[in-house]
Order: sequence, then structure tokens, then C-alpha cells
Amino acid sequence: MEHFDKPKEACGVFGIYDFDGNAVAHSIYYGLCALQHRGQESCGIAVSDTSGPKGNIGNHKGMGLVSEVFKEDTLRRLCGNLGIGHVRYSTTGDSSLKNAQPLVTNYIKGTLALAHNGNLINAAALRAALEAQGVLFHTTTDSEVIACEIARQRVHTATVEEAIIRTARQIRGGYALVIASPRKLIGVRDPLGLKPLCLGKRGNSYILASESCALHSVGAEFIRDILPGEVISITPKEIASDRSMCCGPKAHCIFEYIYFARLDSRMDGINIYDARFRAGAALAGAAPADADIVCGVPDSGIPAAFGYAAASGIPFAIAFHKNSYVGRTFIKPTQKERETSVALKLNVLKPVVEGKRIVLVDDSIVRGTTIARLIVMLKEAGARSVHVRISSPPFLYPCYFGTDIPSNKQLIASSHSTEEICAAIKADSLAYLSIDDFESMVGTLPLCRACFDGHYPMDVNKPS
Amino acid sequence: MEHFDKPKEACGVFGIYDFDGNAVAHSIYYGLCALQHRGQESCGIAVSDTSGPKGNIGNHKGMGLVSEVFKEDTLRRLCGNLGIGHVRYSTTGDSSLKNAQPLVTNYIKGTLALAHNGNLINAAALRAALEAQGVLFHTTTDSEVIACEIARQRVHTATVEEAIIRTARQIRGGYALVIASPRKLIGVRDPLGLKPLCLGKRGNSYILASESCALHSVGAEFIRDILPGEVISITPKEIASDRSMCCGPKAHCIFEYIYFARLDSRMDGINIYDARFRAGAALAGAAPADADIVCGVPDSGIPAAFGYAAASGIPFAIAFHKNSYVGRTFIKPTQKERETSVALKLNVLKPVVEGKRIVLVDDSIVRGTTIARLIVMLKEAGARSVHVRISSPPFLYPCYFGTDIPSNKQLIASSHSTEEICAAIKADSLAYLSIDDFESMVGTLPLCRACFDGHYPMDVNKPS
Amino acid sequence: MEHFDKPKEACGVFGIYDFDGNAVAHSIYYGLCALQHRGQESCGIAVSDTSGPKGNIGNHKGMGLVSEVFKEDTLRRLCGNLGIGHVRYSTTGDSSLKNAQPLVTNYIKGTLALAHNGNLINAAALRAALEAQGVLFHTTTDSEVIACEIARQRVHTATVEEAIIRTARQIRGGYALVIASPRKLIGVRDPLGLKPLCLGKRGNSYILASESCALHSVGAEFIRDILPGEVISITPKEIASDRSMCCGPKAHCIFEYIYFARLDSRMDGINIYDARFRAGAALAGAAPADADIVCGVPDSGIPAAFGYAAASGIPFAIAFHKNSYVGRTFIKPTQKERETSVALKLNVLKPVVEGKRIVLVDDSIVRGTTIARLIVMLKEAGARSVHVRISSPPFLYPCYFGTDIPSNKQLIASSHSTEEICAAIKADSLAYLSIDDFESMVGTLPLCRACFDGHYPMDVNKPS
Amino acid sequence: MEHFDKPKEACGVFGIYDFDGNAVAHSIYYGLCALQHRGQESCGIAVSDTSGPKGNIGNHKGMGLVSEVFKEDTLRRLCGNLGIGHVRYSTTGDSSLKNAQPLVTNYIKGTLALAHNGNLINAAALRAALEAQGVLFHTTTDSEVIACEIARQRVHTATVEEAIIRTARQIRGGYALVIASPRKLIGVRDPLGLKPLCLGKRGNSYILASESCALHSVGAEFIRDILPGEVISITPKEIASDRSMCCGPKAHCIFEYIYFARLDSRMDGINIYDARFRAGAALAGAAPADADIVCGVPDSGIPAAFGYAAASGIPFAIAFHKNSYVGRTFIKPTQKERETSVALKLNVLKPVVEGKRIVLVDDSIVRGTTIARLIVMLKEAGARSVHVRISSPPFLYPCYFGTDIPSNKQLIASSHSTEEICAAIKADSLAYLSIDDFESMVGTLPLCRACFDGHYPMDVNKPS
Repeated sequence: MEHFDKPKEACGVFGIYDFDGNAVAHSIYYGLCALQHRGQESCGIAVSDTSGPKGNIGNHKGMGLVSEVFKEDTLRRLCGNLGIGHVRYSTTGDSSLKNAQPLVTNYIKGTLALAHNGNLINAAALRAALEAQGVLFHTTTDSEVIACEIARQRVHTATVEEAIIRTARQIRGGYALVIASPRKLIGVRDPLGLKPLCLGKRGNSYILASESCALHSVGAEFIRDILPGEVISITPKEIASDRSMCCGPKAHCIFEYIYFARLDSRMDGINIYDARFRAGAALAGAAPADADIVCGVPDSGIPAAFGYAAASGIPFAIAFHKNSYVGRTFIKPTQKERETSVALKLNVLKPVVEGKRIVLVDDSIVRGTTIARLIVMLKEAGARSVHVRISSPPFLYPCYFGTDIPSNKQLIASSHSTEEICAAIKADSLAYLSIDDFESMVGTLPLCRACFDGHYPMDVNKPS
Repeated sequence: MEHFDKPKEACGVFGIYDFDGNAVAHSIYYGLCALQHRGQESCGIAVSDTSGPKGNIGNHKGMGLVSEVFKEDTLRRLCGNLGIGHVRYSTTGDSSLKNAQPLVTNYIKGTLALAHNGNLINAAALRAALEAQGVLFHTTTDSEVIACEIARQRVHTATVEEAIIRTARQIRGGYALVIASPRKLIGVRDPLGLKPLCLGKRGNSYILASESCALHSVGAEFIRDILPGEVISITPKEIASDRSMCCGPKAHCIFEYIYFARLDSRMDGINIYDARFRAGAALAGAAPADADIVCGVPDSGIPAAFGYAAASGIPFAIAFHKNSYVGRTFIKPTQKERETSVALKLNVLKPVVEGKRIVLVDDSIVRGTTIARLIVMLKEAGARSVHVRISSPPFLYPCYFGTDIPSNKQLIASSHSTEEICAAIKADSLAYLSIDDFESMVGTLPLCRACFDGHYPMDVNKPS
Repeated sequence: MEHFDKPKEACGVFGIYDFDGNAVAHSIYYGLCALQHRGQESCGIAVSDTSGPKGNIGNHKGMGLVSEVFKEDTLRRLCGNLGIGHVRYSTTGDSSLKNAQPLVTNYIKGTLALAHNGNLINAAALRAALEAQGVLFHTTTDSEVIACEIARQRVHTATVEEAIIRTARQIRGGYALVIASPRKLIGVRDPLGLKPLCLGKRGNSYILASESCALHSVGAEFIRDILPGEVISITPKEIASDRSMCCGPKAHCIFEYIYFARLDSRMDGINIYDARFRAGAALAGAAPADADIVCGVPDSGIPAAFGYAAASGIPFAIAFHKNSYVGRTFIKPTQKERETSVALKLNVLKPVVEGKRIVLVDDSIVRGTTIARLIVMLKEAGARSVHVRISSPPFLYPCYFGTDIPSNKQLIASSHSTEEICAAIKADSLAYLSIDDFESMVGTLPLCRACFDGHYPMDVNKPS
Repeated sequence: MEHFDKPKEACGVFGIYDFDGNAVAHSIYYGLCALQHRGQESCGIAVSDTSGPKGNIGNHKGMGLVSEVFKEDTLRRLCGNLGIGHVRYSTTGDSSLKNAQPLVTNYIKGTLALAHNGNLINAAALRAALEAQGVLFHTTTDSEVIACEIARQRVHTATVEEAIIRTARQIRGGYALVIASPRKLIGVRDPLGLKPLCLGKRGNSYILASESCALHSVGAEFIRDILPGEVISITPKEIASDRSMCCGPKAHCIFEYIYFARLDSRMDGINIYDARFRAGAALAGAAPADADIVCGVPDSGIPAAFGYAAASGIPFAIAFHKNSYVGRTFIKPTQKERETSVALKLNVLKPVVEGKRIVLVDDSIVRGTTIARLIVMLKEAGARSVHVRISSPPFLYPCYFGTDIPSNKQLIASSHSTEEICAAIKADSLAYLSIDDFESMVGTLPLCRACFDGHYPMDVNKPS
């Protein structure tokens, strides 16, 4: 169930360069709409006209959804053939308009617009070092640290790509960057490949996006994933690539496959729908249940529930109706009305579940509050038993690379055994997919699974 | 697929009377949220404090969704223990704030607040007769005609119920009314039962609502459907019922079962989910297909697709991802971008459909534009064949009772044979459920099926 | 000083009919801007296209100033060549959008749009009588009572003018009405002439307005005042006038000349600026003072101060600077900051007043709070003495005809002698203009001076 | 007449430090309201709590008037006892929210908030030099250049004051700065004294403001003007002052005395009202006229008109009524309605001017369009003759220090003789005050009169 009791991905980025000189603002708009699941807090678009004087860039940002922040007249005013966009959920920096992206600044070579997904673990140190050299900061974001460092390096380098590479060698963490310099569109992916970024093409336009679904939304075809550590530079003259940072080990974020990425995206060679379906199927083998129907928690548990149903032979059924009109601006029930809170967003289909033994599949449990409420609802509607199956391992460790997860205290698995959780949520049985079983769903792709096993792919200097 | 190429239901109504004197505005808000699928154009709430002087009623209306129009401070200002609410999609009257409901007026006995779902076929005649007697009208709605008539009758009757009954005897059409007189909550359902209305109870509160799902959303239990022709009057002293108009034939709107009502509602003894599932199952028997997977058009075709899959033994699969962030305020693509329009809201899951023979189930076809686009998308993603199955009969005739349907010219089935439609939408085969097969899904319940066979349950004075 | 401690006029009305068929919405907008001083709470415009079917009328209303409520696109949507407008400060009815005017309704002959300035003393009785006949009311305004009565009379009369005359014979109080029936613009003034209304002409357009300044603002010339009791009907065929109610005694509201009307208006033969200047001059003769400079309270006391200065020979000087940016939406100072409140809107010009003996002229005193604060400010800035001169008599009685005045308890003059008021406001001397002296400023024009002497021009059924 | 055909001052600044720890946001609000005449385009407030960790600063900015941008809840969220505010009319930088002030940034010592009135003539050069060193710019304002330079200097200085002094030695132009460093309030005035800044005190609070009227609006007393070139640093420990840049020649902006400053301010020892009155009196001596009445153009010409009337013995009279409701958001008349445009804001008092020979006084003429329109209005109302008298010399040269003046082409005096202007505006006679006569109104105060004589007080590198 989206928005409740799930980790949150920080951001989505999108960039496009139309060599034929056509306006790109609407394409960025549609691309950001397709990436909206990666951040609903703020969004922004910056567009440059490469035929004009350097630095002639328009931009607009706002708090809220892409469809709330941008109207036709705003898009029309964003003239140009090179642009980037961003959707954001704040993990660092205040949740305010000031910190919304893209960050649009002026430096020695004209405009520098930057959109950033991810989190640096050495941002504070870099910032302090820059301040000690007399640098002013206007925001509290990691992104401004990156932009400042690029501007400083640019004084000493022959190209902006070189300044970006030098900067990338200094920053540590997970990141995908899309940068518009006056006449170049540049993409960067962190050396571990923690954050996704891919390349697409539509006619004579090239596109960079966090997920392939955004390419399809603008009618572009997927070309390839950007390599971990790669710096790609797109100009009408050439699509250049620097792979000097590409040789190290990789560690793709496992949660993209479990929950973040959109069902219809393909990421580093893996179809997201397939991965989730296969995880459900593996779960059916590892943790069978004696039941009449398999149901998924909408919407995140549905694909794994299909996999579980297919592998187990138990029929899939819809247990919940989701009210698509209950959105972010909905008035939350008071303390007294609290117990019925989930019922506003999700309602049980009583005739489906009454008298049934149910396998209830979800992709993950964070606090456990939502799944507990759903089990109560199913039982009140007459379900005989509810067997919870989670298509990922127990969530035990925090993330330092841009995924927002509650503190350890709130992670139910960090202080409770599976049996204790089962009792707490009043399920008739509970099983998680093991890490090893889970990995099989993505084949041989190297993953960062630190949230499950605590083995971080770099020294994270955990805050005490 | 909601909002595209479907008939539109006019309205949803909700009323509540808390005998313990508790504030009811928040309950109406949650009830209207649960009925939001019945009208997204405007909404309103009117609340009365029965302990105060007669006629002390607060109300607030606005254009847009319930969650957009009402904020916490607005609800707090609507003090009282008796209230009604309304969600609207205009079928008669302008689409403007002025015509939003509830209609709140003052008459000889104090306030008269009225919320109305449906359409009268003799409204113009009644209105002209009232104007000829010197009556002023402030809106262009049928609802004001009803309220005026009640006020006029009330001068000569002992009770408001009697005035309402006299009014009901004069109006013709489909309607469900919820009325708050200073200290009474009154519900009325048209004698044919075209429009739904049901009664619920929560503690010492009684509730009237268009659908049972709204009862559940406020934690109330379903008591019974209001009878066609019944006038129910709720006061702390008694729940009184007049059934003098209940003896005629019945004709429940068939489209509630096909599309309008929410999946988790129960209406006149029929579970909506069951009805749609059974329609899909019947369709599998009547129109089998040689296919690898069964898919539903989100969200309206999903339950029938489950039924089809279960009855045929062909596995169900998710073919489309629906972007829940693409809402009403979304900027529509330009002419040039038009072809990709549906791809913004719905995207194909290519790995699921590639190389597959697909049964694509939907509940109805109006213009045929959306299904045609979806078939193109499936084929482009590699589907080998697409067999369209519609879980209702071809849509041939207009509705005069409050359902908004395009004119005959736009109803593809009114000018094309099934074979022609199949060719037009480029499906590999196309089949509809027959009227007789469809009726089996609702047992012996008498239905108005005029949109399919043209046999209207009353003389409708079709406009020339 | 506007907005503080003054009686409030209820409303301003404006109507225009362009026989050449040109759009009139912008002219109404400019006319209402010129009448904005008569009501800042809400405003509205209703426009009809007489070449279209009867009743095709657009209207828009909102809370706030004309320039806030109307934007270019709103005016453009109000198409038509016949229209009326209204600015309002509520004296009866809630201060809400619902009660904003013009009131636009439909009756037997099509649309009936009505804008009303004034107050009826028998509105409650008329309303009760109508309710007893089964009439519904949508608002709590007198205006709706008038419109209902017109609609009812219209059933039995040959023309709308006759229905209006019959209605006017029933309503009692002060009123000016501007009415747009589908193809007629009609004006009505109460038989006593309590409320003003005048006629203007621009090319082939005729205009009705509360004040002549609104005629000038749209480039029209003043033709004449509408007579007390006159019903004027404007159509392309003729300008017809019914004077059957014109024969009784007259009683023009004295406060229009003292404070309400705009300085550049001419009303019933009197130039407003002249009247106020002459009142100041009369005051100088009746209540001389030994002083160095004469100052006026901005803006209402300035013309009388000029008159006082001219008659006395004491030079006029500007004592206060008025901050024109401190408007209605200004955040009021807290209790602690209260003492400095007036200083935000008005500031003393210290070099002007320091060491001076000052005559401070204002047009009236209601509560006395503002004048007291201004005297403190002058003394703090070094004024040696402050002699207050009021260019009207003491305010002693409430008004029942649409002027908003605080209750008797708050009228300082109703419970204090002039000496006591002088002491309370810490003035060095205080004098009012006598009623007789005041009347001289308007020549022989018959006035309603009930607020000064309690002699109401009709039986007002004072509420107990 | 404000807003029409006048030069525009760039900005107003305000700062306050309450040593008793009381909240200051409301005081800044009232102070900015009093300075609103210096800029109506955007405004902002930044507040710091000196008892909290360094850098804990809240700020809010917006487009529009102070009373539009700030509401009670916004002010409440701006907690702290040290703060600054700004009202802006853009002279450099785009007119956008991004460029609104105060500029709030973080540097090595925590927050640095800066509000700036004025214009630098070497900003572009300083900016280019900083960019060449790798500095990023977020805005297009001079203010960011100043803040960047302070941050860079601060790395090498012992105190922030020293960094500010070093910065002040590099920037050239007219400026008044109010800066809040985490626990200091600092004011700076340019060495020539082109821009005003003064110091006030209220209880245990110290205040810096562009004009003394802002001190009075918050109940503070005026202490002294900040000296040209002075850097004043306010902390609970001491009020320190650096005067190392105070020894050069001075050149106060003459237009503050003519038009910019508020009537009730005192600036560098001169009462603004007195200066303008005396200019009018001098004009009467230098350019007498045979007339019946003296009138001023509201509001800017009124004080000089009083002076002219007093010196000439010709009585002052009010010729125009100004509609205070016609504000910035007013819909401008179309081309066709253009001729009547000024009549909406200003209306002639016909009985005052009819048949009269009039002296019409204004403070300056820029384009001449407004005065021409006013003369037409007076003549149409029956004035026999209109003798225009301008209480300043002809406006001939552009300003480079932050005053917005139309280009030379639009300055009517730069291409027309006084006789030609008189003919163009259709006046019966026209006279300006000479520079020498004008200077007498401010005694011995050294003025920058470059706009009249072209002698700039520094090398301005005029753009070609």
C-alpha cells in the first residue's frame, strides 16, 4: 500500500536534448509524471535554449505533484531544446521550495542546472571545507555542494566533463546526476550503481531518466543503462562517455527491485514486474500455506501475490478496493476515528474473503502498522485465517544512500523475532523470503543488501 | 479505464443524524469520499444543529473533489448533529458552483436542505407551471424544482413527510433524495428503484447513503436498502416509513451493476464484485477464446476478467500499469502528442504480454476510442493476438434518468455491427455478453435495461 | 479617517444598457470601482445579451474589492449589452458570498437580475407572508424578498414595470434598485428619496448609478437624478417613467452629504465638495477658535477643514501623512501594540504641528476612539492645543434605512454631553455644527436627519 | 501622482535587534509597511533567534505588497529576536521571487542575511572576477555579489565587521546595507551617502531603517542618521562604529528630498515636508503666476503646492479626487478606453476648478504624459487657464545608483525646451525651479544632482 509504512525513495531525474531544436518542456513534464512515484513533495523543470546566448535558462519549481505545479502557461514560458527535471522527496535538506530542484545557478561558463537523486555520505565534510574557503550556501542540499564543487573545478579544467569527473571522484554515496551546462546534457551515475539512470532516444532527441518507464511515456526507446561510474555527455556532435570510474565493484540498490521502481520499468537488465513475480513464486516454494485464496496488499504486493498464486496453484483474488480519490490532501481522521483510518483508503471485499483462508502477500514490512490493520479488516469481514507472506527479507538496518527509512526503533524487525511480529500483527502465520532466495530473482546482478544484512558497500561513518 | 469513454453517473448522496448530538461533518466528509466515484465535479455539505433554533444551518460547497473542497477548518465550522452531503457530476443544469448541492433554502418551517441523485423527465413542465404561479428559480437544477414543490405543498400539509409524498407523486424519473428539515432526516427513493439508497446505523446514529460502501467508510453497519417508492423519516422518536408508493413495478438501473457502483458495495441484495465476476464467467462460457492470458482494462474490467479467467482456466495477468498520479488537472497532450495520450495514464507491461495471445476484458464500450488505443499498445508490445470480451451487451440507447451518455452518433454500437466494431478497434475477435446472460448475474432482480433494448420503464417524451 | 469609527453605507448600484449592442462588462467594472467607497465587502456583475434567447445571463460575484474579484478573463466571459453591478457592505443578511449581489434568478419572463442599495423596515413581515404561501428563500437578504414579490406580481400584470410598481407600493424603507429584466433596464428610487440614484448617457448607452462620479468614470454625462418614487424603464424603444409614487414628502439621507458620497459627486442638485466646504465655513462662524493652523482628519475631514480655514483666515496645513498601502488585509497590532495602531495608517508631520495651536476638523464622531488617538499623537508631536470642530451635529439615534451605525451604547454622544466628550478625547475645546446651520449647506433640500433628532420620516417599528 | 510617470526608488531596508529576546517579526512587518512607498514589487523578512544554534534563521519572501505577502501565521513562524526586512522594486536583476530579498545564505560563521538598497556600478566586474575563481551565483542581483565577497573575506578576517569593511572598499555605487550575522545586526552606508539609513531605539531594541518614518511606525525614537561610509555593528555588548571610510566628499541623492522619501521622514537633518514646502515657496518667488487657485498633483505635488500658495497668497484648493481603491491589480482600460484612463484614479472636482485660473504644482516631470492628461481634464471641467509649476529642475540625465528612470529618449526634457514642453502638454505657462533655488531648500547639505546637471560624483562607466 503506497504512502503508508514503506521506505521512501528520494527522487527521480529526467533530462532531454533535442538536436532538432524543438521545445522540450512538455516532454519533461510527461517524463516527470511517469517518475512521480519516486517523489511527490516538490518538482521542477529547467530549460535552456541552446541557440540563444549562454545561460539563457528558464526554470520553475513548486511544492506538490507535477500536475499541480505545472500548468500549460508555465510550460509554454519554459522555452528551449535542452532541459532537465526533477521530482523530490526530501531525505536531506528541509522540505521547502528553496531546496526544490533542479538547482539552477550561474558559473564561469554560463548556466549550470543540476538534478540529483541520491545521498552523499561525505556532504557535510565537503560543505565545511568549502565554507572554510569562503563559499556561501543558499540551500541545505547535497546537490548544492556538488554544484559548487563543479564550479570550482571548472576554473582549472578544459571541459565541464572534466570538472564533473573530478567532482565525482570526491563525492561518496549513491547518486544519479543529470546536468545541463549551456550546450551539453550530462549524466553521471555513482560507481557502485546504487542509483539508476538510463539512456533513451526519440527521433533526434536523447533522453536520460531514472527509469525506463519515463522513456516510454514520451515515446522514446530504451537504449541502455548508464554504467555505474560512467559520465555521459550528450551534444549534437557526439555522445561521449568517460568510464574511468567504472572499474570497481557494483552494488545496485535492492529496494528498487522490491518496491521503488515502477512495475513497467526495466533496470540493469531486470524487468521489475518479472523480479517481483518471481520473488512471489520463490516465496510460495519456501513458505507454502494451506489456503483458499492468495491476495496482495494494493498496490505494492500484487505482483508477488500473482507469483505466489501461480507457483502454489491457489487462486488469486482481490481482497481490497482502493479508493483512488483519497490523496495527499485528505483530512486525516482524529484520534477517535483513527482505528478506521485505513478503511478510508482500502476497503475489504467481504464476499471475496468471507469464510476463506487467505495468503496475504506484501513486498515488505517496515513498522507493521498497516499490515496489522489489514489483517483486522480481513478477520472482521469473516476471513478464517490470514497467512502473511513477505517477498523480501526482514528490514533491519538503516540506509545512508538516499532511501528514507524510519529509525531502528521503528523498524519492527530490528527488535522483534518473526514469531513476535506474527503475534503482534495477529497473523495466523508469517514468513519472509530469505536473502539468498531473493537474490535469485535478479540473477547474478550485484546488489546492495545492507538494509537486510548490514554489509554496507562503503564505510558509512554511521552517526552516533 | 475510468474517466475515459464511460457513461457517467450523476451523483452520490449521504445523510446522517446523530441522536447523541455529536458533530457529524467529518462523517459526511468520509462518506462523500467513499462516494466520490459517483461524481467529481462539485460537492457540498450542509449541517444543522437540532438543539439550536430552527433553520440554523451551515453549508459549504465547491467545485472539485471532496478532499480539495473541504479542509479541516471548513469542517469545524459546520457544527451540528444532523447533516447531508452530495457529490455531483452535472447531467442537468450548468456545471457551476451555483448548481452544486446540497440545495439549502428556508421555507415556512425553517431550513430545508436537499441532496438529489437522478434526473426528472418532467422537470421542465413542473418548472414552467411553478413559474406561471410566480415562483423564482435561482438555479437550473431539477433539485430546486423538487424543493420548491415541497415548500408549496408544506403550506397545506400537517407534516413535511406528507409534503414530500405529495411532491414525489408529481415528479417522474429516477431519483434518490436525502433531505434535512430542521429536526428530521428524510430519504426518498423513486418508485421504480432506478437510483439506489440504503440505510445504515452506527451507535445511536442513522445514515442514508447511495451505496453501502459509504456506510462502511464511517464504521456503520448496513441495515437495508430503502425500498423503491419508500419515504423514510428519521427522528430521535422513531424511524418512520411511508410505503404508499411502493406497490408498482421495479426497474433498477443495470449500469450500477456493470460500472457505476463501487466494487465493495452491496445494492438491492447483489454484491457488486460478485455480479461483475459472474458476468465475466458467463462471458467465458458464451464467448470462449484460444488464448494464453486474460487481462482486464484497469480498473473497470478487472473483476470480469477474474471471472473470465476462473471460468476459462486461462491464467489472469496484469497487462497495464496505471499511473495514479495522472489526475484531472493533468495537461493533455497536444494534437501531435495525441497518439501517446493513453500511454501516460496506462502503460503496458511488455514482459507480460510479449508473444502472448490475450483476452482483454472490459465492462462496456461507448465510443470505442480507448479500447482501440489499448489494443495498439498491446500489439506494439508484442502481443500475438487480442480478443476483446465485453461483460455487458452493446450500448444502443440514451438514458433519461440521470446517466450521462454520449449522443447516439457517438455510441459506436448504434451505427456499427459487432464485426464492424471489431475491425474498427483492430481486435482479433470481439464478443459482448447477451442481455439474457447478463441478467443471470443479478438473479431475479428487475432491471431497467433500456440502454440496451430501448424499452424504457416509463414514457420518456424523447426530445426530438 | 476612512474605515475607522464611521457609519457605513450599505451599497452602491450600477446599470447600463448599450443600444448599439456593445459589451458592457468593462464599463460596469469601472463604474463599480468608482462606487467602491460605498461597500468593500463583496461585489458582483450580471450581464445579459439582449440579442440572445431570454434569460441568457452571465454573472460573477465574490468577496472583496472589485479589483480583487474581477480579472480580465472573468470580464471577458460576461458577454452582453445590458448589465448591472453591485458593491456591498452588509447591513442585513450574513456577510457571505451567498448574499452577494446582483441577485440573479429566473422567473416567468426569463431572467430577473436585481441590485439593491438600502434597507426595508417591513422585510421580515413580507418574508413571513411569502413563506406562509409556500415560497422558498435562498438567502437572508431583503433583496430576495423584493425579487420574489416582483415575480409573484408579474403573473398578474401586463408588464414587468407594473409588477415592480406594485412591489414598490408594498415595501417600506430606503432603497434604490437597478433591475435587468431580459430586455429592459429598470431603476427605482424609494418615495422619500432616502437613497440616491441618477441617470447618465454615453453615446447610445444609458446608465443608472448611485452617484454621478460613477457616470464620469465611464465617460458618461450626468442627465438627472431619478426622482424619489420614480420607476424608470430603459429600452431601445423609449425611456419611460412612472411617477405615480412621486407625490409624497421627501427626506434625503443627510449622511450622504456629510460622509457617504464621493467628493466629486453631485447629488439631488448639491455638489458634495461644496456642501462639505460650506459646512466647514459655517462651523468657523459658529465655533471660532484661536489657533495657528487648521488641519483636517484624512480624508473625511479635509473639505470642511478647507472651508473652516477659508472662513476663519487661519491657514490650512497638513498634519498627517496617510499610508495608502495599509489596507483591509493588514495584520492588526496585538493588544500590546494597540496604542500605536493608528500610527500605522496615519503619521503626524511633526515639523508642521510642533508648537502650534491647532483646529482639527472632522465630519463626525461616532465612538470617539479615533479622534482621541489623533489628539494624543498631535500633542506628543508638540502641538500646544487641539481644538476639535465637527462639521455635523452630534450623532444620537440609530438608522433603520441601511446605514450601519453602532448601537446607542457605543454612540459617545448619546450618553455624554459635549463637555464630557471634550474631556474624554482630551481636546482643548470641542464644537459641533448645529442642525440648522448644517441644513443651510444644502439649501432647501428636504433631509432625513433622524440620526441627529430622532424624527424618522416613517414609522420604523423600532426593535425592542 | 504616484505610480505614474515618476522615477522609482529601488528599495527600503529595515533591521531590528531586541536585546531582551522578544520576537521581532511583527515589528519588521510594521516597519516594512511604513517603507512600502520605496518598493511594491516584492518583500521579505528574515529572523534569527540568537539564543539558538548559529544559523537557525527563518525567512519568507513573496511578490507583492507587505500586507499581501505576510499573514499572521507566517509572522508567527518567523521566531527570533534579531531580524531584517526588505521591500523591493527591481532595478537590477529580474523581477522574480528568486531575486527577492533579504538574501539568506550560510557561510563559515553560520547564517548571513542581507538586505540591500541601491546599485553598484562595478557589480558586473566583481561578479566576473568571482566566477573566474569558481564561484556559483544563484541570482542576478548585486546583493549576491556583496554577500559572496563578504563570505570570501570572512575566511581571512577576525570579525565579520572587518570582512564587511573590506567588501565595502571594493564595491562602488550607492548602497545601504542591513546585515544579520548569527548574533550581530550590522548596517553600512555608502561613502557618498547616496542612499539613506538611520538608527532608532525602542526600549532595549535597536533599529536600522531607510527612513525615520519606519522608526515611528514601530514606536521607536530616532537617534541619528548613519554617516556616509559608516559601518555600525549592534550587539548586546556594544554599538560599535567604524568610520574609516567616512572622510571623503558626500553626495546625498537629491530625489529623496524631491519625491522618494515619505513626507513625515527626516533625512540627514532635513524634514522632508519642510523641504518640499520650501521648494514650492521658492517656486512662487521665481515663477509667479496670475491665478485664482493653487492646486497640487496628488499626492506628490501637494506639499509644494502648499508652499506656493503660502508664498504667493493665492488660495490652495483641491482639484482632484483620488480613488484609493484603484490599486496595482486594477484592470487597465483598453486602447479604446485609454483616454479616460487617468479619470479612474483621479477625478476633477468640477465646482472647484470651473472658471478658474489655476496654478498646478507637481514635483517633477519625467515623460510628461500624466501632467498633459491632467491639464486636459482641468480644461474640460472649465478651468480658464492652467499654469504648471514644477518644484525641481528639468530631468536630463540617467541615474546609475539605483533609481529607475526611463531612457533618455523618454525623458521629455532631454529633447525639448521648456517652451516646447509647455506646448506639448498644452499648459498656459510652465516653469521649473532652478538647481540653485532648489539647493536652498536643503541648506548646505551636499547633494548628488547628476540627474539635473550630469556631474556624477564618481566615474560611472556609462554603458554605450
